[in-house]
Amino acid sequence: MPLPCPTSAPSASAQFPVLTAPEAAALIQHGDTLGFSGFTPAGTPKAVSRALALRAQAEHAAGNPFQVGVVTGASTGPSVDGALAAANAISFRTPYQSDPNLRQRINSGETHFFDMHLSMLPQNVRYGFLGKFSWAIIEASDVTADGQIVLTSAVGAAPTFCRVADRIIIELNRHHPAALRGFHDIYEPVDPPHRSFIPVFSPSDRAGTPYIRVDPKKIAGVVFTDLPDETAGFEDPTPVTTQIGQNVANFLASELRRGAIPPSFLPLQSGVGNIANAVLGSLGAHPDIPKFSMYTEVIQDSVIELMRSGKIEFASGVSLTVSPTVLASIYKDLPAFRSRLLLRPQEISNHPEVVRRLGLISINTAIEADLFGNINSTHILGRNLVNGIGGSGDFTRNAFLSIFTCPSTAKGGKISTIVPLVSHMDHSEHSVQILVTEQGVADLRGKDPCERMHLIIEKCAHPDFRDELRRYAKLSEGGHTPQTLANAFAMHQQLLRTGSMRGVTWNE
Amino acid sequence: MPLPCPTSAPSASAQFPVLTAPEAAALIQHGDTLGFSGFTPAGTPKAVSRALALRAQAEHAAGNPFQVGVVTGASTGPSVDGALAAANAISFRTPYQSDPNLRQRINSGETHFFDMHLSMLPQNVRYGFLGKFSWAIIEASDVTADGQIVLTSAVGAAPTFCRVADRIIIELNRHHPAALRGFHDIYEPVDPPHRSFIPVFSPSDRAGTPYIRVDPKKIAGVVFTDLPDETAGFEDPTPVTTQIGQNVANFLASELRRGAIPPSFLPLQSGVGNIANAVLGSLGAHPDIPKFSMYTEVIQDSVIELMRSGKIEFASGVSLTVSPTVLASIYKDLPAFRSRLLLRPQEISNHPEVVRRLGLISINTAIEADLFGNINSTHILGRNLVNGIGGSGDFTRNAFLSIFTCPSTAKGGKISTIVPLVSHMDHSEHSVQILVTEQGVADLRGKDPCERMHLIIEKCAHPDFRDELRRYAKLSEGGHTPQTLANAFAMHQQLLRTGSMRGVTWNE
Repeated sequence: MPLPCPTSAPSASAQFPVLTAPEAAALIQHGDTLGFSGFTPAGTPKAVSRALALRAQAEHAAGNPFQVGVVTGASTGPSVDGALAAANAISFRTPYQSDPNLRQRINSGETHFFDMHLSMLPQNVRYGFLGKFSWAIIEASDVTADGQIVLTSAVGAAPTFCRVADRIIIELNRHHPAALRGFHDIYEPVDPPHRSFIPVFSPSDRAGTPYIRVDPKKIAGVVFTDLPDETAGFEDPTPVTTQIGQNVANFLASELRRGAIPPSFLPLQSGVGNIANAVLGSLGAHPDIPKFSMYTEVIQDSVIELMRSGKIEFASGVSLTVSPTVLASIYKDLPAFRSRLLLRPQEISNHPEVVRRLGLISINTAIEADLFGNINSTHILGRNLVNGIGGSGDFTRNAFLSIFTCPSTAKGGKISTIVPLVSHMDHSEHSVQILVTEQGVADLRGKDPCERMHLIIEKCAHPDFRDELRRYAKLSEGGHTPQTLANAFAMHQQLLRTGSMRGVTWNE
Repeated sequence: MPLPCPTSAPSASAQFPVLTAPEAAALIQHGDTLGFSGFTPAGTPKAVSRALALRAQAEHAAGNPFQVGVVTGASTGPSVDGALAAANAISFRTPYQSDPNLRQRINSGETHFFDMHLSMLPQNVRYGFLGKFSWAIIEASDVTADGQIVLTSAVGAAPTFCRVADRIIIELNRHHPAALRGFHDIYEPVDPPHRSFIPVFSPSDRAGTPYIRVDPKKIAGVVFTDLPDETAGFEDPTPVTTQIGQNVANFLASELRRGAIPPSFLPLQSGVGNIANAVLGSLGAHPDIPKFSMYTEVIQDSVIELMRSGKIEFASGVSLTVSPTVLASIYKDLPAFRSRLLLRPQEISNHPEVVRRLGLISINTAIEADLFGNINSTHILGRNLVNGIGGSGDFTRNAFLSIFTCPSTAKGGKISTIVPLVSHMDHSEHSVQILVTEQGVADLRGKDPCERMHLIIEKCAHPDFRDELRRYAKLSEGGHTPQTLANAFAMHQQLLRTGSMRGVTWNE
């Protein structure tokens, strides 16, 4: 499909009121719900939120209540969640977060957090299920007089926030070149009962426009900034993450060989983080894995690396969450990436319709997995939220092949990530086909719960915990799902009591 | 869309070898995997499977092993699961069942059962994830010389079984009129990476042909039968199911009034059983609920009743699982139903793409629900399978509005269906928006786990169990999800010990 050329029309941003960040923050009222552009720190506003945090602190110091609802694409950088949570300025937060300050507020019950599948956020916002939105706060690389907003390094749910919010504040961030126009594909489905198909049939298909179109009268003002994305780096691969990556690559290569994956391969979705980076590295290095495309959520450094090496031919994502140096290198090389990189709204990047149609191979990371293949993606010991479910459910439920990865142990070997029953369930056995640790690969397709249990113990659990898990399996014999409620959380309770899952006393 | 006219061409079934059921059963080998047409008892073969059960018994009596893999659309009548399980002739079974004999074999570990989302069965069969299929055994109302198979009262996964199986046995059941031609819409998506959109944009849209087209050389023979569907009746509504129905209807009417559901209403999906019948009855009787369409899995008696009264304008489903008298009345009145009733493959009736596009209101039944909105659809006390997850996950995950219903108590009040933590999780909190019991309605949208907990206790739990659940809530305070692993299953363990969930001793 031909790409729209970057426009040479001059930016008309100057026609909108120019605001300082404090002036913009002053427009926002206690009790408002705000929709922020961005997805991860990429594309997330940074100036208005920091000014808003200062304003909240001042109001609180004066004895006035000041809190807002904060809705974003996914997580943010410290300038949104970090600053606003530190100021205790967030009453309600959805759909995802990864900030230590905010996490503490959520786990202490001070901030209401609603965890949701990221593909569903935009439609639930449009359906009115999350109430009225007063403000959309949008980081842009350009805005024209007739209301074309060109985003920066992410799309997230910005098109929907612009649609539903009463007014829009633009952060025009000169750190991103106006030549980014053309890297975004903005498409919002019509709502039922009049919705049609999503016109995306391959990762490179374009469905919409390179900009968000808004009524210019909705734009309350423009705040000029020049701020880099607040992305964090990744850790170097460890022997464990490298082995997980190799296990995934070897498994996919063997599926290819036996014809269970089409010879042209399938588009890949990969979660975020160090394991995901290691998996991509191993896929890139594996001689039997052909060139492939990504249809994913977050585009990380490792994707760009494999694009440069030619192993990844095209990457469709919702955000360019790369390190500052990698982003700078892309921006230096924009023409080369223009035909190979596309950023979409999360409603499209994660849409069940497209995920199932394209037949993605999805690879996501678990906090813990149980003997039946259920996955915990969100909670520690069933109580405390880590980040949120994110897009993992959108992809894993609808993938051609759904893979979950995790190291078999955590906390220096004190914790087995393979447990009798997950302490919080985010993905049920029905959505999980392949479980991979550094120990090996359990292919759960077509296996009953008893078969899965033995497979996961012998293939995925750490040898140090296999005897304990075998003991549980023995104690639980019988029934379709061999499970003993009295022992299901015994390893977790041992951890709570002793700081380690080792040496469990089972209820016999 | 114009409907294809029923053909007047004479049936060419006589050109295929005519087999007796035992002759057909004799073609099947130990170790074969068989794909049966049908969905529920509707449309399921009855003669070959009974003959196969007799053959298995004879082989077992002679000391020979004889077991087959049985794959169907969903559950079957007693002639498949019942007869074959009684003969211990099933080694592997997927994707759903509801037969007492088979359930006992599964829960004793004698038969391997793989529970799965029903929309995924056909594609996983085509992808080869369930191995090689030797035989498709298909109940038909007609078959032509050039290989057009017209099905009977269900579609299920028959098109896919016909595609992948080496050979096909037809049960030509004269109980169903050949004039059924035109009631089925057979459409199978192409597999990734070449899949296009599913061309269904309203419940009445046709995407395919009124018959399955096969290479006639694959048809090994035709067994003539004249057997009614082995459908069971439903129980009359009780005060509890009636109240659940009224709560659902009142809730939907209030959502309509406040504009959270489009004024034209949305297509409805409804699960199977007595509660579903009561809900449909209440929706039919509610003056503020406009005429609507069904885009559902199983079409039950109550749907036909509301079609006759005019409240339901169109019904798309995968099976006509109605009582024999209702089926006879439809067959007497075929021209009137021809433009208002359509049977599709389960891959299309349950397809996430279509469910999300149409914006279904989904209503499904839970075995138990927990304080965070997680749902158990499949297991008793976490161990013993009841039926299976069926299509509930396909619909609830992708619906515009996802509702789960259950009576607040079971076993004469000894069991609270509202528990601290479900003993088996099939649908996570992320997929469940509205929980309804006869006590009331909990709207969980946008609520954090702590808010959901209090809402579910006060709105949905039975008053007799509220104090116990409040005690659990008090004991579990803190964290994003107020949950205490040491007490999460205390009510279930009390039930195991005493036969009742009352009078729990909590770990304080």
